[in-house]
Amino acid sequence: MIKIAIFGYGNLGHGVEKAVLRSNDCKLFGVFTRRKRTAVETQSGVPVYGASELLEIDEGAVDVVIICAGSPDLPELTPKIVSKFCTADGFDIHEKIPAYCTAVDGVAQRRQKTAVVAGGWDPGLFSLQRAILQSVMPEGKSYTFWGKGVSQGHTQAIKWVDGVLDGVQYTLPRDSMIERIHKGETPDLSPREMHERVCFVVEKKGADREKIESDIKNMPDYFKGYTTSVYFVTEEILKKEHSGFAHGGKVIRKGKTGDFSEFSLSLSSNPDFTGEALLSCARAAHRLYKKGEFGAKTVLDIPPSYYLEKNREQLIKTLL
Amino acid sequence: MIKIAIFGYGNLGHGVEKAVLRSNDCKLFGVFTRRKRTAVETQSGVPVYGASELLEIDEGAVDVVIICAGSPDLPELTPKIVSKFCTADGFDIHEKIPAYCTAVDGVAQRRQKTAVVAGGWDPGLFSLQRAILQSVMPEGKSYTFWGKGVSQGHTQAIKWVDGVLDGVQYTLPRDSMIERIHKGETPDLSPREMHERVCFVVEKKGADREKIESDIKNMPDYFKGYTTSVYFVTEEILKKEHSGFAHGGKVIRKGKTGDFSEFSLSLSSNPDFTGEALLSCARAAHRLYKKGEFGAKTVLDIPPSYYLEKNREQLIKTLL
Repeated sequence: MIKIAIFGYGNLGHGVEKAVLRSNDCKLFGVFTRRKRTAVETQSGVPVYGASELLEIDEGAVDVVIICAGSPDLPELTPKIVSKFCTADGFDIHEKIPAYCTAVDGVAQRRQKTAVVAGGWDPGLFSLQRAILQSVMPEGKSYTFWGKGVSQGHTQAIKWVDGVLDGVQYTLPRDSMIERIHKGETPDLSPREMHERVCFVVEKKGADREKIESDIKNMPDYFKGYTTSVYFVTEEILKKEHSGFAHGGKVIRKGKTGDFSEFSLSLSSNPDFTGEALLSCARAAHRLYKKGEFGAKTVLDIPPSYYLEKNREQLIKTLL
Repeated sequence: MIKIAIFGYGNLGHGVEKAVLRSNDCKLFGVFTRRKRTAVETQSGVPVYGASELLEIDEGAVDVVIICAGSPDLPELTPKIVSKFCTADGFDIHEKIPAYCTAVDGVAQRRQKTAVVAGGWDPGLFSLQRAILQSVMPEGKSYTFWGKGVSQGHTQAIKWVDGVLDGVQYTLPRDSMIERIHKGETPDLSPREMHERVCFVVEKKGADREKIESDIKNMPDYFKGYTTSVYFVTEEILKKEHSGFAHGGKVIRKGKTGDFSEFSLSLSSNPDFTGEALLSCARAAHRLYKKGEFGAKTVLDIPPSYYLEKNREQLIKTLL
């Protein structure tokens, strides 16, 4: 059994917990929270520890720590954890992945640990699709559309804005662009031309709505350059109408000679799905570690059989 | 540059040749044919050798042999070639892959070579989809549909039948089954319930049509158990109406909790696409070999970055 620890116990942490309970080859050591430890109770009844206790835990007690904190915290957090444990994370600020990967790799190589970084569905599953499809259609063009759905990273980002009490961010693909591609066009499109961002925000009492709107729209990495709408709603409306976690997206590859492929994903719960994806990455991290393959690894580096519970012979028989 | 030899120079061999010419990191050593060597001329002008000459070639002259012969020949052929060279092949009789893989692995391990087996789009790309989607939706059901399109293996199989001069085999998905799945059902379906096979056959003068039809319909591995129709046509009609190589298919995965994914592929030329896929497998074989990873490898064993020309840093930057 692979012994898993969860660091960070928000929606994603809960998703990972469910995935571990469902699995047959992993078990939960415990949950590490940065909130007040006594205020947190786990679904599964496994022990809750304070975040600072993680590095005091015996090395042999945990095989992989799945880091479920927000991406902006990871560049500081992950190297610390990797200095003692193998890890899996869903770092999802695309532009910063190379630097993050290099930084984590340095520690992981030095400490002979394996850290699977940037897992999940995008980066992660969609990155894999882009890689595989480029390999079989080397001359061509790829398009990635996200949504319609609640983006966890962007929802979190709204909450950091001064004056915001709560909020939700939807990413919407522009259907008109998908239509153009389906019709045979191969336009040059940036993610900013392919999507819109819609935010529903509850402000703190007395907060400046104009400033909040401007702070959101100009937030680098997350909103700047996107067509973003911000709507202010009451707490009741937000809870009633915007508490779902559905998401999805598609990766399209058009080959030069007329080949076409489309991968569509529709998720009922983004954090639960991402939880499953990160557990697969944790399994892969453990197997790479056992083979002595240390360092930071991405989905591009992992043999697909490493994600799965069954052994290679069973997989060859049932999946090939 | 990776030095590639092509063994077998039919439609697939031509597809591999185009892929090598298009690539920036591979070059063609030559083509090995089992036909009369002087009767074969290559598109690219590279030398043509007799099949028996392959094992006389200097080991350092060729990095990977891409085996483009029909699957029924491979269990005998591949181990011979692997005794001297790394290989990539598209062995596609699904039920026999485990035994084939084991047999090739034995020789490859002994001779310290790397053989990527069962590449292409199914097995291959579709196997990867099934594996990846099972990893992120571990509880659920996968469906693979092939077609509409000309299946190379089955077309070849028709030609082996006594009395057949020429022929073409179409695999058709049953749209009614796809509809049921899209509507939310999760029926238990075998490939035989999900597809039909339609054959257009030109018989040799004086051949027994009834016997041909029965021989095709009862051919194990290929047709037995499938709903198969056989139509007899003239050579002219076959050439005029049935010489395209389009194909395609889809892999659907339905998760238990409502997650849904669908991967669709539409190919303008099956052999050209398979040629690209096998070249990617050859590249992977070469890289695994350089790392000392010997034996028979499938798409489940290969880190996706190994398929691609660009180096890992570029891939992390552009694909993740």
